[in-house]
Amino acid sequence: MIQFIPSNEGVSILFNQELIIKHHHSHPSFYVGNGNDHIESYRGNYKIDDYIESRIPLESYKIDDHKITFYHHEIELILLFKEIDGRLIVQLQSNQVFNRFWMRLYATPEEKVYGCGEQASYFNLRHRNYPLWTSEPGVGRDKNSLTTFYADLNDKAGGDYYTTYYPEPTFVSTRKYWIHLDTFAYADFNFKNDSFHELHLWEIPNQIILSIKPTYLELITDLTDYTKRPPKLPDFLTDGMILGVQGGLEQVLKYLKQAQNAGVKVSGLWCQDWAGHNYTSFGKRLYWNWVLNEKVYPNLKEEIRKLDQQNVAFLTYICPFLLENETLFNEAAQNNYLAFNKEGFIYKVDFGEFDCGIVDLTNPDAYNWYKNIIKTNIIDLGIKGWMADFGEYLPVDCILHNGKDAKLMHNEWPVLWAKCNYEAVQESNKLGEIFYFMRAGAHGSQHYATSLWAGDQSVNWETHDGIASVIPSALSTGIIGNPFTHSDIGGYTSLYGNIRTKELFERWCEMNVFTSYMRTHEGNRPSTNFQFYNDDDTLALMARMTNIRVDLKPYIISLIQEATQLGYSVQRPIFIHYESCSQAYDIQYAYMFGSEMLVQPIVQPYQNVQEVYLPDDEWVHLWTGDIYTGNQSIIVKAPIGFPPVFYRKLGKYRSLFEEITKKYKL
Amino acid sequence: MIQFIPSNEGVSILFNQELIIKHHHSHPSFYVGNGNDHIESYRGNYKIDDYIESRIPLESYKIDDHKITFYHHEIELILLFKEIDGRLIVQLQSNQVFNRFWMRLYATPEEKVYGCGEQASYFNLRHRNYPLWTSEPGVGRDKNSLTTFYADLNDKAGGDYYTTYYPEPTFVSTRKYWIHLDTFAYADFNFKNDSFHELHLWEIPNQIILSIKPTYLELITDLTDYTKRPPKLPDFLTDGMILGVQGGLEQVLKYLKQAQNAGVKVSGLWCQDWAGHNYTSFGKRLYWNWVLNEKVYPNLKEEIRKLDQQNVAFLTYICPFLLENETLFNEAAQNNYLAFNKEGFIYKVDFGEFDCGIVDLTNPDAYNWYKNIIKTNIIDLGIKGWMADFGEYLPVDCILHNGKDAKLMHNEWPVLWAKCNYEAVQESNKLGEIFYFMRAGAHGSQHYATSLWAGDQSVNWETHDGIASVIPSALSTGIIGNPFTHSDIGGYTSLYGNIRTKELFERWCEMNVFTSYMRTHEGNRPSTNFQFYNDDDTLALMARMTNIRVDLKPYIISLIQEATQLGYSVQRPIFIHYESCSQAYDIQYAYMFGSEMLVQPIVQPYQNVQEVYLPDDEWVHLWTGDIYTGNQSIIVKAPIGFPPVFYRKLGKYRSLFEEITKKYKL
Repeated sequence: MIQFIPSNEGVSILFNQELIIKHHHSHPSFYVGNGNDHIESYRGNYKIDDYIESRIPLESYKIDDHKITFYHHEIELILLFKEIDGRLIVQLQSNQVFNRFWMRLYATPEEKVYGCGEQASYFNLRHRNYPLWTSEPGVGRDKNSLTTFYADLNDKAGGDYYTTYYPEPTFVSTRKYWIHLDTFAYADFNFKNDSFHELHLWEIPNQIILSIKPTYLELITDLTDYTKRPPKLPDFLTDGMILGVQGGLEQVLKYLKQAQNAGVKVSGLWCQDWAGHNYTSFGKRLYWNWVLNEKVYPNLKEEIRKLDQQNVAFLTYICPFLLENETLFNEAAQNNYLAFNKEGFIYKVDFGEFDCGIVDLTNPDAYNWYKNIIKTNIIDLGIKGWMADFGEYLPVDCILHNGKDAKLMHNEWPVLWAKCNYEAVQESNKLGEIFYFMRAGAHGSQHYATSLWAGDQSVNWETHDGIASVIPSALSTGIIGNPFTHSDIGGYTSLYGNIRTKELFERWCEMNVFTSYMRTHEGNRPSTNFQFYNDDDTLALMARMTNIRVDLKPYIISLIQEATQLGYSVQRPIFIHYESCSQAYDIQYAYMFGSEMLVQPIVQPYQNVQEVYLPDDEWVHLWTGDIYTGNQSIIVKAPIGFPPVFYRKLGKYRSLFEEITKKYKL
Repeated sequence: MIQFIPSNEGVSILFNQELIIKHHHSHPSFYVGNGNDHIESYRGNYKIDDYIESRIPLESYKIDDHKITFYHHEIELILLFKEIDGRLIVQLQSNQVFNRFWMRLYATPEEKVYGCGEQASYFNLRHRNYPLWTSEPGVGRDKNSLTTFYADLNDKAGGDYYTTYYPEPTFVSTRKYWIHLDTFAYADFNFKNDSFHELHLWEIPNQIILSIKPTYLELITDLTDYTKRPPKLPDFLTDGMILGVQGGLEQVLKYLKQAQNAGVKVSGLWCQDWAGHNYTSFGKRLYWNWVLNEKVYPNLKEEIRKLDQQNVAFLTYICPFLLENETLFNEAAQNNYLAFNKEGFIYKVDFGEFDCGIVDLTNPDAYNWYKNIIKTNIIDLGIKGWMADFGEYLPVDCILHNGKDAKLMHNEWPVLWAKCNYEAVQESNKLGEIFYFMRAGAHGSQHYATSLWAGDQSVNWETHDGIASVIPSALSTGIIGNPFTHSDIGGYTSLYGNIRTKELFERWCEMNVFTSYMRTHEGNRPSTNFQFYNDDDTLALMARMTNIRVDLKPYIISLIQEATQLGYSVQRPIFIHYESCSQAYDIQYAYMFGSEMLVQPIVQPYQNVQEVYLPDDEWVHLWTGDIYTGNQSIIVKAPIGFPPVFYRKLGKYRSLFEEITKKYKL
């Protein structure tokens, strides 16, 4: 129910009895204006300077049935309020052109908000502002860390608490509403104020959608009804882990054998170098021409068939960039499938010692061509999954086929890229059997990205870019409808003296049992970082953890089902199941793995015990069977292989979990 | 002559044929609005967040005789144009209250601007913006330096290219005008745009003053006619150097004797520890109760008389803060002479392991009391000079006697402090005989600060905070009317691994011969940094350089006279004497020492030759007598003791300089 309550010089707008907008002549809720931005980009890192030339408060208003016009003299912003499917839809229209827009959503001081895409530093977004712009998240992501200092100095790549692959103008409030602003423009959502959230956009959005539900679970289901949910993950992902290895067929089959001999349950081999290698000073990189390299992976189709027989999937890699002067680039260039620069030539993106063209996904012919490349070059080989990399690099000064400003397409690009992959799988009738994982995201990724991964963490313990950061990442994307995410076991980025240790790899491995799926990565500099295949101990740990994973299969399958049916993410904030537990709302390094398990991974080195806050329930420690009453913090031992995990004593998977305790106890 | 030239939807405002304001309906020249600022301070370092809530373009205008009203519907900004003393005076008034103001001054792409107070990173301000707010300038002042990284991390004290002790909304343009905005409010002057300078203030200024002259020399004289000029420096400052030493009377007299025995011409002993010591983790600091410590300096009045007989002045130190629970603090507290906090208690400022009260200089009784402290506790002892330290620390949340918002008083504080010192000297009839040196400044420092010093440089070679940085500092304060400045020989701040070397000290010493006066400083950590009194070689160099200084006396005295009569600073940008030399406008690490000498100090380590650009003239190398034709770059040898210095071959001091060449030649 929409209500307008005019007051002395103001108006309150309520939806289902909740105050949404509180406008007053002297504290307006809407502003329009113009700004000049200056965007510098360097390999996916952006320096954005905005200069606001005007910001006009729309202090006056008039009501006309379901329409409110906020205005300042001749400048009008018309808001049309509708209720559709139980949600509030506000359509906006202005009688003049503006490139800046601000709105103030009513807020309470104690309110918390979550979402806005993937947020790796802070799950609760309150008391900070969040520029929403897809980019490299940065190395270190903490201006107080030396890692970030050097990354900024050398590559402008240090990042900050808000830099993210996946920004989205969608969030969930503890006032039990979700809101989505229908735009892909640059945004800056400011949650610093006690009495309002100020939502700033570089365009007036077409519409705003808001929905209120009595519980968080209903809220998430409603939000994912709106965004649409992804297909289920393939079953094989619960049958073991994916080994991220490379070096050619012979080499990867050796790794497989080695792992299997050590008792590791392997459900996939992810060989990103299927198209060959490229060596740069950053490390060993891929050959960006997405065609099977027969020298490196000879007879692959047949080999994949053989692997299938032992239930090992073969996975690979693709991204929307094409290496200059190679076959795909040349074909695309001939057909005008690549984005242009302002001078009318093919736009070349510098990836560090090599240049690439950009497949123009706004060109339907290019889009279909690339979709077919995915089908013919990947799916037809029997490949079951891939990393669909990048999405966050669209240069703001390139010229696109659809004629839209690349600056306004920049944030939409990841979802176009997701959709291209989705349709390739869909048209091959393989949804639910084939999957891919993406780091970049946008509104729509909920449906079109079959899963996410948290990107390129530093191979260390730093809060904002190390092992811990993947947990808030999972919670924030999860709460706005992305149920499936995971992270590189061991992290990825080894720069500025950060070298992956055995301990880090092992902690990451044990944590990822309790995520959507398990996959390792060799990192950007494989030879100087810890690798599981050089360590029998670690192989033994991987055997232990994958066996646990397989034993959990019935439970995990139920979580995947729940995700596709109700939108609940596999990793969830504790408070969505324990709404009355006030402490749970600020927990960002522990989570529910489904409704039945609580996990608080070890994310610091040299730590063998962990303090865990248990919400109000009866809990059983997975590795000892010890029973704890919740609503208190307890301390448990947590040597490697025994991450702090608890299950609900009275839940329906109790007997499954009891079996695990018996088999794997501390 | 003031001209308004209306055009289609716009108006051009000219003064003496120069276009000053180019207003158009779609590109307005004036904006008003409101903002919410949030200022965090930590020991003189400020983090200023501003949130612009409204910015209204005043797109319309109407002309009424000498008045132009720029307006937006009912919002009016009335500008009254007058010509007084050949200058343009614009008085501003608004019919509504706003706390934010923007104006766009017409600019040309090739124009350069200089001034805005003391700017240590860039002399030409074009292509950057300059927040104008008095503060600690920071340690390193370069976000790409490790020094700054650690200073930020540990003390929020890294600074940036614009952080300065002395900001002023006054600048000189190469379009040969100077402009001053009559305000002490926070400002941000943005010189990034090709066609306008955007001047942003946190209040609407009462008036704007602008003056145009045919030459830079006339421009500077006119500006300093407006600001008023300082009294002359005492003659003794040209009779040798001031030794910055401490440790008590016996100790400093030993240093004096040691230096004199080595042949150093000493004209003063600067003993900042006259009131005693305070040891903190930052280093050896002063006892902030400005009363002679008789234990440390026994019988000082008589000792000063004895020093006077050998023409050695005694110098000391004071600042506007009083150490908690000490005699001056208690006296001030009893009389309500200290600033209050919002709770009505005495405002305590944390200086790192000790707290102080702030003498409320807006309270006439407090002001006069403190002026008398300077007279009785300092001048009456026969002291000839002092460091009048601080001025940039006024907390924005303190409550002042005059009832003004401390945020708006913050930038004015340095000039109040300067005036207090000035009047103490003036009322003692000692102007021109007694002097003091200040780092903080504001509009009015030109008259009330008898001299400046460049503050606390790092004891190293870093561009933005090391030895080099004092040159743009001198040029920028100089061009807006502060003729006398100098710097600590050897620098001050030794933190984060920066330790003063002998080479740095010696290069700084030889440079400062060619500044207003020479003074050493032991730095914040005397015992771990290089000190001249531990090195006979360096004493010999100081002997050489001070003897040169004394031999230059007739020339230097003429520069001091010129400064007080015409406003020309002792250190000047090359272009003010060589207007047609286009290359000179971007030189910031070389300068004219008066009209007759060009100096380009060595500001890098291990450097024994220097490339020097000589403007179009005939030049003689001071150390060899070699003659060079200008309008070219030449290379000279520059071992220690022989900084690159040239004099005009045809100038009137030629014979004096020739004598120096003979006596001190390379």
